[in-house]
Amino acid sequence: MKFRVKDMDIATGGTLVVILNIKDAHKLDLRSGDRILVKNSHHQVTCILDISESKKAVPEGAIGLMEEVLDRLRVRKGTIVEVKFTGKPESVKHIRDKLYGKHLSYEELYHIIDDITHDRLTDIEKTYFVAAGFINGWNIEEIVDMTRAMVETGQKIKFPGLILDKHCIGGVPGNRTTMLVIPIIAAAGFTIPKTSSRAITSPAGTADTMECLAKVEMSEKKIKNVVKKHKACIVHGGSMNLAPADDKIIDVEHPLSIDAEGQLLASVMAKKYSVSANHVLIDIPMGKQVKVKNWNQAKHLRKMFKLIGKRLGMNVKVIVTDGSQPIGKGIGPLLEAMDVLYVLRGAPLAPPDLRKKALFMAGTLLEMTGKYKKGQGSQVAREILDSGKAYQKMEQIISAQGKQKKLKLGEYTHLVKCTKIGRVQAIDNEVIAKIARIAGAPDDKGAGLYLHKKVHDSVKNGDCLYDVYAENKFKLDLAKEFIKKNKGYLIS
Amino acid sequence: MKFRVKDMDIATGGTLVVILNIKDAHKLDLRSGDRILVKNSHHQVTCILDISESKKAVPEGAIGLMEEVLDRLRVRKGTIVEVKFTGKPESVKHIRDKLYGKHLSYEELYHIIDDITHDRLTDIEKTYFVAAGFINGWNIEEIVDMTRAMVETGQKIKFPGLILDKHCIGGVPGNRTTMLVIPIIAAAGFTIPKTSSRAITSPAGTADTMECLAKVEMSEKKIKNVVKKHKACIVHGGSMNLAPADDKIIDVEHPLSIDAEGQLLASVMAKKYSVSANHVLIDIPMGKQVKVKNWNQAKHLRKMFKLIGKRLGMNVKVIVTDGSQPIGKGIGPLLEAMDVLYVLRGAPLAPPDLRKKALFMAGTLLEMTGKYKKGQGSQVAREILDSGKAYQKMEQIISAQGKQKKLKLGEYTHLVKCTKIGRVQAIDNEVIAKIARIAGAPDDKGAGLYLHKKVHDSVKNGDCLYDVYAENKFKLDLAKEFIKKNKGYLIS
Repeated sequence: MKFRVKDMDIATGGTLVVILNIKDAHKLDLRSGDRILVKNSHHQVTCILDISESKKAVPEGAIGLMEEVLDRLRVRKGTIVEVKFTGKPESVKHIRDKLYGKHLSYEELYHIIDDITHDRLTDIEKTYFVAAGFINGWNIEEIVDMTRAMVETGQKIKFPGLILDKHCIGGVPGNRTTMLVIPIIAAAGFTIPKTSSRAITSPAGTADTMECLAKVEMSEKKIKNVVKKHKACIVHGGSMNLAPADDKIIDVEHPLSIDAEGQLLASVMAKKYSVSANHVLIDIPMGKQVKVKNWNQAKHLRKMFKLIGKRLGMNVKVIVTDGSQPIGKGIGPLLEAMDVLYVLRGAPLAPPDLRKKALFMAGTLLEMTGKYKKGQGSQVAREILDSGKAYQKMEQIISAQGKQKKLKLGEYTHLVKCTKIGRVQAIDNEVIAKIARIAGAPDDKGAGLYLHKKVHDSVKNGDCLYDVYAENKFKLDLAKEFIKKNKGYLIS
Repeated sequence: MKFRVKDMDIATGGTLVVILNIKDAHKLDLRSGDRILVKNSHHQVTCILDISESKKAVPEGAIGLMEEVLDRLRVRKGTIVEVKFTGKPESVKHIRDKLYGKHLSYEELYHIIDDITHDRLTDIEKTYFVAAGFINGWNIEEIVDMTRAMVETGQKIKFPGLILDKHCIGGVPGNRTTMLVIPIIAAAGFTIPKTSSRAITSPAGTADTMECLAKVEMSEKKIKNVVKKHKACIVHGGSMNLAPADDKIIDVEHPLSIDAEGQLLASVMAKKYSVSANHVLIDIPMGKQVKVKNWNQAKHLRKMFKLIGKRLGMNVKVIVTDGSQPIGKGIGPLLEAMDVLYVLRGAPLAPPDLRKKALFMAGTLLEMTGKYKKGQGSQVAREILDSGKAYQKMEQIISAQGKQKKLKLGEYTHLVKCTKIGRVQAIDNEVIAKIARIAGAPDDKGAGLYLHKKVHDSVKNGDCLYDVYAENKFKLDLAKEFIKKNKGYLIS
């Protein structure tokens, strides 16, 4: 059947959606969510059908095309296109099987992950996939297969030989160890090509922070060049299409804030596998306000990471660290980058907790290579850091990736003071992160918080707990408004 | 923060959706799916946020409003509105709890059902609700509570005294017993206010079929009048807002064609409870191509229906019937209505299987009232039918609801002939239904199939298996095309 194209002037952000009037849909016995093949003389594309009950949006005889579909078909409004019904993708059947408790094979998982990668599934279908996996669980075999499918449906960067990597499962503000561990490891002579993410719900991701110092978006070729010359890079993985299904799955997990273990494991391992890593250190922060709340959870996750690593031919080591309060003093891209530089330069302002954690992690990675004995790693890492070699390496990486022009901290500031005498008992990670985000982080790189007091510090009336930085007055006022209700510090 | 209204010229069909540019969303730390309160000086409404990455669709400083939101706020394009973040509805937390395996209380289920009724949940959230209930299961307590919540959040029609009702869980083409059972029961002096549905995936629902003879859309007041005068009605329930959450839940079940038992039970019982029914007969067709495939499934469902009925103060009787082939000869609204009239008039063309099933059901209902002894019901029903009293009653109901002008069968016809000698071993319900739908049913009331041969009939080369009727040539050609691949008859 033929229809006249209407340009809906809307982008879905991925999914290929077309809209028919309800009367035309009835004629063709089609329902919302059905797949139809839309074609003109040169191109064709399979789309997901949406139905309009109003003539105003899409009249009879017309087909409303979202921007993504217009682009793929290379048509404009008024063009005549042909429409054919095609069945639902095979993957919908597999998702249904998983709902009924079936274990899925590699081929079945590949179908699903491939369709997610190419925006061929609706939100409802993706949600059933996540919910079914979450409740019925994924076994080790399925998680390994899902990881492989995620890698296969994305870009891979091949590096030969011993390749190190690290990952933190997140949730702790200020935790910028990557930007210290990478230069230490590379200065020790090992290859560590690091792809990082931007913040989703936090005030800064490693990619946002590194971007204060160097360019982080680059081609595969450029990355390979940087790593060949300097043994390391710190770049944004998002722009590289590594395991792209992962982000699209996270989109439907977010609305209910569910932590689907199988998805987490596959997500982390796929990103590492995509860059050829074979020795991987995983940091699991433990605390009341992070993903992992207690030792039983931590031990279970450690076991799973190691098992999956083994199946993928990776040497995986897992460390469980303190996730009860922010690491370092700065929260927000530029403030966190400054913390990192202080540690690299051995400056008096260097936060000791950040330095200590980074040395421990770098030491552990060094020992994993087999070139150093147990207990020796931390010592070697410290020597590299204190000698200035790590700083030098970081400068090489920055100039190879492309140095950024110097940024400035937000000019609008606000001091948050203590109003009683006592000790800091706890810092609320979520509140601290929220304040930094309201102040403008991570989009405004100079926005954020600088913590003067940490847990166990003694405080008295009038002491400064932290400063807030913002790049415009409106956002600072919003942050001040929020702080009136909650400072994020428990003092007694 | 203030925004300028943009009229998106799109209706969502329910959900209240507004769109912000991604840059504005970042400033306010908002994500897709977040709830925001939109208000002007007179009205306010809580909406679900969607995010536009393109300036073209929604530029910075603007807020795109769907038709439903424009109507509620009574604003036009260019108006300035204020936007505030509000948390997610309480019900999202309860859905999350169900994902984690918790049993939900009446209050929690009420929150969820109320939010579904009022379009306050996204498709993703509704899908998690259905998936969680499907996999983790609902216990009797929860199903009863869900049924009550569905009734409480919709319209109720109160009738006093002994109120009968019937329901078929569907899947069998031509199964129009309702239009025979209702006049028989009413002619026997009992009250039976019947609300029926239109076809969703079948060639005709009872409402579509009844509409060939009488008006089926009417107000609560009109229904009460008809029932007061004639003890019965056969109307479309959809227009009356009885347990409206049900249809909105079905919308997210359909994409994966899952049969969530708890949902089915709550759906059926809520519709009956909404019209004050206290004696309910439920027909479960059993067969390879319908919901219930075997005796174990049928017995389990029977037990559940009876248990829930008891908890709601209803006397429920369940019969398991043959669902292996179509009932009657006509498939499609007018053809099915003609079958019904043939039976009511005792015409020679009356399909014996439809007559027999209707008498059995009417007899069972009569016995449920306690006024007739076991075994007596069928006899009484037959007398009422054969005496013409049921036909007279049907004519009263039709004229009270409003007689329709006479319809005609589709003028484009096609005979499907048998090409070998043998017996009809099976008729494929799904194929027969599909052909009738392609021919135009249920929207084209005169479209459909008339079956000349049923299972066990002997056939020879050249015998007519069935006729196809369509109201336009294009649809008849489509149906002929389909029949070339599959006639829907197994003969050997």
